[in-house]
Amino acid sequence: MGKNIFFEQKGPFLLNEILENINPKQNILISDIKSLNEAKNSDITFFESINYINFAKSTKAVCCLTTDKLKIHLPNTCKAIIVKNVLFELCKVTRKFYPNADIDSLDTTLKEPIKLNYPKVSFGNNIFVGNNCKIGKNTILGNNSIIEHDVVIGENCVIGSQVVIKNTIIGNNVVIQDGCKIGLKGFGFIPIKEKNLRFPHIGKLLIKDNVELGSNCTIDRGSIDDTVIGKNTFLDNQVHVAHNVKIGDNCMIAGQVGIAGSSVIGDNVSIGGQAGISGHLRIGNNVKIAGGSGVVKNIPDRTVVMGYPAVPLKEFIKNSKKK
Amino acid sequence: MGKNIFFEQKGPFLLNEILENINPKQNILISDIKSLNEAKNSDITFFESINYINFAKSTKAVCCLTTDKLKIHLPNTCKAIIVKNVLFELCKVTRKFYPNADIDSLDTTLKEPIKLNYPKVSFGNNIFVGNNCKIGKNTILGNNSIIEHDVVIGENCVIGSQVVIKNTIIGNNVVIQDGCKIGLKGFGFIPIKEKNLRFPHIGKLLIKDNVELGSNCTIDRGSIDDTVIGKNTFLDNQVHVAHNVKIGDNCMIAGQVGIAGSSVIGDNVSIGGQAGISGHLRIGNNVKIAGGSGVVKNIPDRTVVMGYPAVPLKEFIKNSKKK
Amino acid sequence: MGKNIFFEQKGPFLLNEILENINPKQNILISDIKSLNEAKNSDITFFESINYINFAKSTKAVCCLTTDKLKIHLPNTCKAIIVKNVLFELCKVTRKFYPNADIDSLDTTLKEPIKLNYPKVSFGNNIFVGNNCKIGKNTILGNNSIIEHDVVIGENCVIGSQVVIKNTIIGNNVVIQDGCKIGLKGFGFIPIKEKNLRFPHIGKLLIKDNVELGSNCTIDRGSIDDTVIGKNTFLDNQVHVAHNVKIGDNCMIAGQVGIAGSSVIGDNVSIGGQAGISGHLRIGNNVKIAGGSGVVKNIPDRTVVMGYPAVPLKEFIKNSKKK
Repeated sequence: MGKNIFFEQKGPFLLNEILENINPKQNILISDIKSLNEAKNSDITFFESINYINFAKSTKAVCCLTTDKLKIHLPNTCKAIIVKNVLFELCKVTRKFYPNADIDSLDTTLKEPIKLNYPKVSFGNNIFVGNNCKIGKNTILGNNSIIEHDVVIGENCVIGSQVVIKNTIIGNNVVIQDGCKIGLKGFGFIPIKEKNLRFPHIGKLLIKDNVELGSNCTIDRGSIDDTVIGKNTFLDNQVHVAHNVKIGDNCMIAGQVGIAGSSVIGDNVSIGGQAGISGHLRIGNNVKIAGGSGVVKNIPDRTVVMGYPAVPLKEFIKNSKKK
Repeated sequence: MGKNIFFEQKGPFLLNEILENINPKQNILISDIKSLNEAKNSDITFFESINYINFAKSTKAVCCLTTDKLKIHLPNTCKAIIVKNVLFELCKVTRKFYPNADIDSLDTTLKEPIKLNYPKVSFGNNIFVGNNCKIGKNTILGNNSIIEHDVVIGENCVIGSQVVIKNTIIGNNVVIQDGCKIGLKGFGFIPIKEKNLRFPHIGKLLIKDNVELGSNCTIDRGSIDDTVIGKNTFLDNQVHVAHNVKIGDNCMIAGQVGIAGSSVIGDNVSIGGQAGISGHLRIGNNVKIAGGSGVVKNIPDRTVVMGYPAVPLKEFIKNSKKK
Repeated sequence: MGKNIFFEQKGPFLLNEILENINPKQNILISDIKSLNEAKNSDITFFESINYINFAKSTKAVCCLTTDKLKIHLPNTCKAIIVKNVLFELCKVTRKFYPNADIDSLDTTLKEPIKLNYPKVSFGNNIFVGNNCKIGKNTILGNNSIIEHDVVIGENCVIGSQVVIKNTIIGNNVVIQDGCKIGLKGFGFIPIKEKNLRFPHIGKLLIKDNVELGSNCTIDRGSIDDTVIGKNTFLDNQVHVAHNVKIGDNCMIAGQVGIAGSSVIGDNVSIGGQAGISGHLRIGNNVKIAGGSGVVKNIPDRTVVMGYPAVPLKEFIKNSKKK
């Protein structure tokens, strides 16, 4: 089943229904909008940056929003639809398929949980749970927390107080401390004077086994793709993880770190307090990023970096001595 | 009506009632304490920094707390009251007029909203609303949120869960995500050993139409003036905006940015993640501030800056090459 | 009474019960695990860094987890137990004495407060208070806040809404603004592939008289020692204070500052917005740290520092001119 479990999906649509102003000649039936590597042969996709060339080459999508420059990388099976602003058209197409995913409105299915439906789950005071949630045995939920519809929480988890969880699938043995707000829509929109056009966020947040989130963290769900926190990765307090970020396994992320949208962090990465990582970067495995660093470039495996902009540690020390 | 809608106001007072230790010779009746440009001809004001010289020259206030050095800039209609420490005297005068604005005490008027009083408003679970609030039609409020007395929220707004709103006036089509705490008193006090003297915060927070605040943001109300977020300005998660800050229209402010007290940001400004802006600065229109930058000086219109301290981009790149 | 008021304590244990794999020859009865300077003559302690040499020399503990290199600094009354990884063995020993302090589970004693038990205390809506809490007269608690078992709050305090307080002892005249999460376990664990081993947090958080915390701050309790915020110290919004940090009196800490674990800050220190302080440092009295700085070394009394890494102000200015 490719159906989105969290958001109401419209369609299928004929291509010229979803791209009225572009008026594509071929008229095919489109099931869904997906990223290059997730799309099936009845889906539309998008290709807006050369960074994603490998996914483009092997996409199964039937058609693709892209630019004149990038279209040559698409396979023959995928019809290129040339547009001026890929993200703007993508935004409009996504809103057509998912009209309610651009703002996090009230979950009207929230109710006090009927404890019989959640055997061996402990509930604190004043908790509200939405429809179709699954909560595993021996999981504990704190006070005043909100678990919205269709959220899945595994076994042996400890969810703190004053937490909000939406559009999220959580593994086993996960600890989420007080005040975290996770699975919310991210900071994505087409800037338009007077009234920005919000990008729908139809992705999920996946939190794997043994993860820990410190207090008051914010982790946004994905826009088209998912946001992922890998197994046994621990986050300290007040960490911000933006939409579509993928963090590997066994990472240690200290307090007040911020990771901008769509960056991919490898396994066994440690990030010191208050470091920032720009968007759309690839951080390798076994990387160490010193506290306070500002990372603006990809980092290869097994590198130690420091500084703003962050450079390999040796270079940082050499530069400091020159001063 | 110049009356403060959020705070109980005492007075009018005779000048020597409010400045007993200074014993001003002239004894005039004073209605209120206001900033240089807001004061009417029965108000007292204050002038403590040459930055505000233009407002000083045209103030309508009847008298002004200031220093011997600055007094020459005041118009003849405004009597200068020379003091050693303008902010300390201002603090005491403000506390006289507004004895309950230095600490955010419990709003004892909070009640579960009577839905008939708020037609076409959707309420989540466990919401409390204070006296005299106005909430526009088609506005949605999440769960466990607190809307304190006299707050105004426009139409078509979406307020998330676990939000606190006090001393705030919100326009239409505003989105405030989960966990935001807005309109609280700011970080203002006269440092005194053993027991600091808190500065009253008698200003409001004004949030204009089409604004969006990400999750867990904190925006303090003004101390004497108001804090303002302009139309169609979007803030990402965990942004901190201090008291008296004024942000223009159509700005984009990424995650974990901090803006210190009384700074003024123009229109169409974009600020990258984790950037910090010092207090009392003027950032022009169409400025771009790179993520992680630390801004310590005014920035003219249409400038791109980066670094700590932030400098124009060209200069930053040149300096980096020298290393 | 040396008993831990917040956590269930097991024992006493024979030394070879708690260090089975090490099999110490002498077999003495051990009452508790304590830091070098807190341990009594029936306690085990640990000594893992030369920074703590002075405490080591005068410890009263009967035995001490340490390394071959460090053992010479212990007094004759204290038996050295040589281990490869002091923190790993410490973690296991602490878990033996305190099996429930590694994860903040649900406080099942939380109830709506019976107001007769708390004379002259004002409660907002929907507050839950645990067993054995003490709340002083004229203290005010906001809405949706959680005060867990055994917490002590002094007189004339103002606690905001959506606050969580656990394992904390608070003095008089303290203000804690909305959204703070304090006394939670910190970011401490032994990294182990697949499943990190969490360090128990058996320390408290002590907040002295006249302290103020801004909104959405996070302050973790101590792991073995306590976390301490000194008298009349004010924190702005979104400040993060890690486990075991000790902050002196009369400090001013601006928005979004982060202080990493076990650092000690003197009296009268001011820290500008977004500055970060690494772990295990000593910051002297009357130090000023500029906003955005990254402090990675100890700072002597009466020093003004700036930069990343932070250096004395004169040096920072000299370096800037060289560019």
